[in-house]
Amino acid sequence: MSVRPISPVSRAPISGPPVSANVVWQHATVTRAHRQSQNGHRAVILWFTGLSGSGKSTLAHAVEERLHQRGCRSFVLDGDNVRHGLCGDLGFSAQDRQENIRRIGEVAKLFMEAGTIVLTAFISPYRADRRRVREMVSDADFIEIYCDAPIEICEARDVKGMYKKARAGQIAEFTGISSPYEAPDHPDIIVETGQAGLDDCVSRIMGELERREVIAKKA
Amino acid sequence: MSVRPISPVSRAPISGPPVSANVVWQHATVTRAHRQSQNGHRAVILWFTGLSGSGKSTLAHAVEERLHQRGCRSFVLDGDNVRHGLCGDLGFSAQDRQENIRRIGEVAKLFMEAGTIVLTAFISPYRADRRRVREMVSDADFIEIYCDAPIEICEARDVKGMYKKARAGQIAEFTGISSPYEAPDHPDIIVETGQAGLDDCVSRIMGELERREVIAKKA
Repeated sequence: MSVRPISPVSRAPISGPPVSANVVWQHATVTRAHRQSQNGHRAVILWFTGLSGSGKSTLAHAVEERLHQRGCRSFVLDGDNVRHGLCGDLGFSAQDRQENIRRIGEVAKLFMEAGTIVLTAFISPYRADRRRVREMVSDADFIEIYCDAPIEICEARDVKGMYKKARAGQIAEFTGISSPYEAPDHPDIIVETGQAGLDDCVSRIMGELERREVIAKKA
Repeated sequence: MSVRPISPVSRAPISGPPVSANVVWQHATVTRAHRQSQNGHRAVILWFTGLSGSGKSTLAHAVEERLHQRGCRSFVLDGDNVRHGLCGDLGFSAQDRQENIRRIGEVAKLFMEAGTIVLTAFISPYRADRRRVREMVSDADFIEIYCDAPIEICEARDVKGMYKKARAGQIAEFTGISSPYEAPDHPDIIVETGQAGLDDCVSRIMGELERREVIAKKA
């Protein structure tokens, strides 16, 4: 896709007394529309939510891989790159979880402005926190994907041994055990990550992105 | 530039008892190297620092426009998109400025991982705060650009009327007036934004990005 030339939009022109005749400092703006045009796809937030062990991060990375193979710009925000960095100062109390999700929402919004399909993979257990992120952007920009897996299956997988620790009382406020998970009332996409294969879940999401005209239909 | 196929790197394979024979959930990873290859340029942080009114944001946006025209992926983080969002809970005390810069550094790092040339335009007055960001990444990834303009010129411009308010004592802890600005000892690039024209400053930075092989030389 060709790059559209940018008209010199004057968003906040620097005025005041000119220092010398040749000093003209005009504010350029590469917009989200320019970037989407450059990338050949829309920028959206794919918000994965579900219990620990429901496969959010693995699924998000698998979708990202498929998007990358199709030439799209995408990025996954998950515990691995956020919890120790940007949100390294936060714990797991309801208040800290809320601030965690707020920051992730703000960063996701920035990535979207940058023209990226951003995939977030956090438990994000509270409906109100997820709703606040949706309200930061337009409704069409926020695609909530519910990774619906029974807790028994998540606990049987216990990828990081967290459920075992939570059952032993070694982790306080563990979602699904000692802290609530509020499933979405009206998620945009439901994937049954407890039963379905990874490829099936990826295809389901890719199909939905085509249907919503986020990405072009496969040639 | 063609997109390299991704080998199925197993970063954190989900193990545990298989739920059914066809459920194989392997963790894919699109790396920074894949993204750089896709984009046809290196990802770096261009960290603009300088007094209020020194032209950081305008210059960053002008560089971004030039990068966009050359088909690069870039994004500017500045007060307009960060101070009211991600860092909307922070003020201007030394402690809050430090946390502000820390979060911006973390977000810049994420954008870099996503393959983007990220430009940050914040006063970032303290050497220690800027050094901490440099230390988050590799030395070659962090390019400090000092927008060197005398305070008299910045104050004469007074784009947002902030210096006037600061002189009248209506803004506490205003950099250069009632709060210190620590100029970089060894910036990677110095641009004399008080005297030089915008185009000259942009060309200076683009030339430096070519020299450092962040972007390809203009055909």
